[in-house]
Amino acid sequence: MVIKHALQVSTKCPKLDINDTLRIRVYKQASLSFSSAFKPPTMAEDGALQVDKLSISDTVEEAEFSQRVLIRSILGRPDGGAGLAGQTLKVGGWVKKGREQGKGSFAFLELNDGSCPANLQLIIHSDVAPLGQFTPTGTCLHVEGVLQIPPEDKQGKQSIELKVSKVLDVGAVDPAKYPLPKTRLTLEFLRDYVHLRPRTNTIAAIARIRNALAYATHTFFQKHGFLYVHTPIVTTSDCEGAGEMFQVTTLINDAEKIEKELIKNPPPSQTDVDLARGVVKEKGEIVAKLKSDKAGKPEITAAVAELSKAKENLSRLEERFKLKPGIPKKDGKIDYGQDFFARQAFLTVSGQLQVETFACALSSVYTFGPTFRAEHSHTSRHLAEFWMVEPEIAFADIEDDMKCAEAYVRFLCQWLLDNCLDDMEFMVEKFDKNAIKRLHMVAKSNFVRLSYTEAIAVLEETVSKGHKFENKVEWGIDLASEHEKYLTEVKFESPVIVYNYPKGIKAFYMKVNPDKKTVAAMDVLVPKVGELIGGSQREENYEVIKERILEMGLPLEPYEWYLDLRRYGTVKHSGFGLGFERMILFATGIDNIRDVIPFPRYPGRADL
Amino acid sequence: MVIKHALQVSTKCPKLDINDTLRIRVYKQASLSFSSAFKPPTMAEDGALQVDKLSISDTVEEAEFSQRVLIRSILGRPDGGAGLAGQTLKVGGWVKKGREQGKGSFAFLELNDGSCPANLQLIIHSDVAPLGQFTPTGTCLHVEGVLQIPPEDKQGKQSIELKVSKVLDVGAVDPAKYPLPKTRLTLEFLRDYVHLRPRTNTIAAIARIRNALAYATHTFFQKHGFLYVHTPIVTTSDCEGAGEMFQVTTLINDAEKIEKELIKNPPPSQTDVDLARGVVKEKGEIVAKLKSDKAGKPEITAAVAELSKAKENLSRLEERFKLKPGIPKKDGKIDYGQDFFARQAFLTVSGQLQVETFACALSSVYTFGPTFRAEHSHTSRHLAEFWMVEPEIAFADIEDDMKCAEAYVRFLCQWLLDNCLDDMEFMVEKFDKNAIKRLHMVAKSNFVRLSYTEAIAVLEETVSKGHKFENKVEWGIDLASEHEKYLTEVKFESPVIVYNYPKGIKAFYMKVNPDKKTVAAMDVLVPKVGELIGGSQREENYEVIKERILEMGLPLEPYEWYLDLRRYGTVKHSGFGLGFERMILFATGIDNIRDVIPFPRYPGRADL
Repeated sequence: MVIKHALQVSTKCPKLDINDTLRIRVYKQASLSFSSAFKPPTMAEDGALQVDKLSISDTVEEAEFSQRVLIRSILGRPDGGAGLAGQTLKVGGWVKKGREQGKGSFAFLELNDGSCPANLQLIIHSDVAPLGQFTPTGTCLHVEGVLQIPPEDKQGKQSIELKVSKVLDVGAVDPAKYPLPKTRLTLEFLRDYVHLRPRTNTIAAIARIRNALAYATHTFFQKHGFLYVHTPIVTTSDCEGAGEMFQVTTLINDAEKIEKELIKNPPPSQTDVDLARGVVKEKGEIVAKLKSDKAGKPEITAAVAELSKAKENLSRLEERFKLKPGIPKKDGKIDYGQDFFARQAFLTVSGQLQVETFACALSSVYTFGPTFRAEHSHTSRHLAEFWMVEPEIAFADIEDDMKCAEAYVRFLCQWLLDNCLDDMEFMVEKFDKNAIKRLHMVAKSNFVRLSYTEAIAVLEETVSKGHKFENKVEWGIDLASEHEKYLTEVKFESPVIVYNYPKGIKAFYMKVNPDKKTVAAMDVLVPKVGELIGGSQREENYEVIKERILEMGLPLEPYEWYLDLRRYGTVKHSGFGLGFERMILFATGIDNIRDVIPFPRYPGRADL
Repeated sequence: MVIKHALQVSTKCPKLDINDTLRIRVYKQASLSFSSAFKPPTMAEDGALQVDKLSISDTVEEAEFSQRVLIRSILGRPDGGAGLAGQTLKVGGWVKKGREQGKGSFAFLELNDGSCPANLQLIIHSDVAPLGQFTPTGTCLHVEGVLQIPPEDKQGKQSIELKVSKVLDVGAVDPAKYPLPKTRLTLEFLRDYVHLRPRTNTIAAIARIRNALAYATHTFFQKHGFLYVHTPIVTTSDCEGAGEMFQVTTLINDAEKIEKELIKNPPPSQTDVDLARGVVKEKGEIVAKLKSDKAGKPEITAAVAELSKAKENLSRLEERFKLKPGIPKKDGKIDYGQDFFARQAFLTVSGQLQVETFACALSSVYTFGPTFRAEHSHTSRHLAEFWMVEPEIAFADIEDDMKCAEAYVRFLCQWLLDNCLDDMEFMVEKFDKNAIKRLHMVAKSNFVRLSYTEAIAVLEETVSKGHKFENKVEWGIDLASEHEKYLTEVKFESPVIVYNYPKGIKAFYMKVNPDKKTVAAMDVLVPKVGELIGGSQREENYEVIKERILEMGLPLEPYEWYLDLRRYGTVKHSGFGLGFERMILFATGIDNIRDVIPFPRYPGRADL
């Protein structure tokens, strides 16, 4: 079942809605009344192209907040832009390829503005401006010109080109110094230039696909009545053990400030403090004496003022005397009472527990934000900072959870087919010939569902037939990546949901099944990446979850708030987490997760 | 001009589209063919209500991923749900108010599921289940029942109520222990119960408004062809000085691990190491001797094995001998080479600089994510963790930037009027009688624009007429909050954009105007909160921006990547930042920023 979405937004061409068949009909009608700018079609077209190639005088809208027309509103039309011939407009973008021709009398430039993978061809004559400065790859151009249909013999792939009449702005490039070589650009090489790599076709296409998946995510959940909740990034709930969490602190910085200050302005010695104390004593005695001598008021006031000054000086010295370099300690341990949040704080590893507080009040909610793991993993599947989508649904059991996960993933796939086909075609051409096929397959097929116990039986059968796995197969193991891939890629050739995992390998918050051996957990496995989603029904019974926390050797105190959700008005609820970058790997066929996030963070690297 | 959006999504009732006039017409027609469940209207209605109160047998869809119907799909209909009378369905939610009646023979319960501010009235008879357990506020109920129109004399505000036939699930509450008292719940009190406060009407309404503003933000930018870019949270670009940044580190944790390890397993002493070295020497001599004695192969092999063992032992001891408790240092400074990212890392204060790398490749982009300030501000306007929306537009100057900011803010206001009117009415009733008026005003009025110099002139004139400001007014000052509020609330009674600020008070990356004294910066000021948006055209000239960095005493090295954007294919570009929580304060009329974010973080507090 393909999810039909009422809100099918074309991110490809929001202004023109040219994917809309209704609109194409309007084009046809519009062709009856040609404007003065109309140029008759230069050549007979075959029937199929007739609609596309009609030279209709339509107007194309300027981007509302920048002085240009988006290239996709020209090239993204069903007629490839031909219908706009004769129009004068401005475009801006970066030269992908430039070559002088006609003995330097004109140049062809392929201009890309990031709005779509396609380039607009510019033709610029040497009487408009010196050509040499425009041809290097990476040159930024903002130009005005007239759209024209290329001469028949030069047409090539272009339905339209822009004849430049005026150069508004140039951002030149010295090709000898530009760090991006024209050839042999590997994705790995580009990781050293995260600030320039969006200028490559691949990273740009990934950025558009990532953007589409993010908006599709919001649209899916909004459509189903889920509320977006911003769970915290800084957390004091150390739920999964501090080992894998980044610490957030101002203690080191504060300590360094004090150290610098103490060097610049050394602290008082004990003698300094004693001396100041002596002064206070002395000034006090003077005041006392004046008073007992019944001295005049002005005299006493002056002496009191001096006493205050001495006291102030003493207290300042005493305070500075206490200043110690280094991180503050108390009873031999770091004194987190002096940290910014007055306790130890970390970067979140998941918004789930926190978003449950909203599910237990507002029913259907989701969070979509960055999460962090301080693991020293150097694999192509791990990042220290990555984005997660985590819905949480009240009044929903594990069945509902699986239904939601399946509908969501299929929605994402269909969305890309509907809105990013040109970028997906690029991916197929350059990286993974199966990428589009995979999207179709997932969008259209019902996900196979089998219990963990059944999955183990399938794997054991395979082993008995001679298939070799590196990791042993037996009931109780956590499925390894090779097992997951076997199930989804070989055995079923379909997305697979495995549910009801052994209690022992899963988290404390998962609902214990009546068999007492398994929990209502589920993982969605897809070809190419394996596990894409992990979820579960949550244990909503106060006594059971308390038992589980203790059973796992965890302290109760940090979970009291979580237990409160079960103490007061508890509700059956379920949820899951989708690793957003894994979804992009799945969609694009890109191999390394570091290439599908704009600014990858991993051990030893956090550029910019 | 009100921005018309093609994608007007009703977040109120996505399934039914009942705000749609077309749909109301369908209702009228549907009334001609009544189903068996039809109950004729019980009373004559006045003309205006006729459409709403027609008892049409329509079906209401079950929420796709939970076993219930969203309450807003009942009560959010134009007929208040009356048209659904006779239908059997399930609902789930939490009891807001419950009372037994008829000498304990039945109870009325007001049920809320978070999908809208309105409660559904349940009537439950004592023969269905014992009533006492249901009436306490906070009780969770999942029930099945039949919708019915309340008897005329009991109708009150309800157009429909659910007669419960079956209780599927109860999450009980002991009112004696529930931490939320029924009365005198202040927002300040609730900050100590962030995990339970979403259960209050106010925090729930704010959550829905926040959700709507987030989706409106994405929809606005997508509609205009902007790509959503996830800028990094962990950053090594210390662009605004480390003083206000949180540090992200694993050094403390690593040091603690080592310390624990050394306590458990004390390091070897110098004597231990020396002894081990002696053993190696001795074993080496034995081997040498055996070899020179031409001993048998097995004998030599055994001696070599002993030597290897001794060497291994020595190197282990030497390594452990080097272990030092505390944070690793090098040349007297903390050795960040040993930190997770091999350098000092922080939480981002803004995604702007990073998102510029995408604007300088993909033209129109935006980021929307959490940002951080380690300021010790205890005001009602500051958070340590807050969300920012930051668009960045290539080929756009300061004029385009202002146009975009204005269109965006007006779009947000119109969106709330279209999609959150019920929650806004709640805000008007409970917090700010002007909240809806303010939205209308902003959605409909053109923002006043005046230069900083003009703004100063206006303020000076006001002062000359006897108005008192706490902060001195003169050209060159940064406008204080009181000045901003005066302009937007008193002088113009409208949103105001002030542009072209003195260079000296603004950041290095802002474009220097031809007058050399001002930069192309702009702030959007709105009633109630003052500054809502700050933005600027960015300096795209390599020489000028380099000069500006040096002028401000900043080092060039950390900005080399930023300079690269100007070195290679530079482009005119502009952008701004909107503080998302400030927008919510503006919309709701809530006074304290800690109440408009789900999990507020501020000095001394980071609950959960």
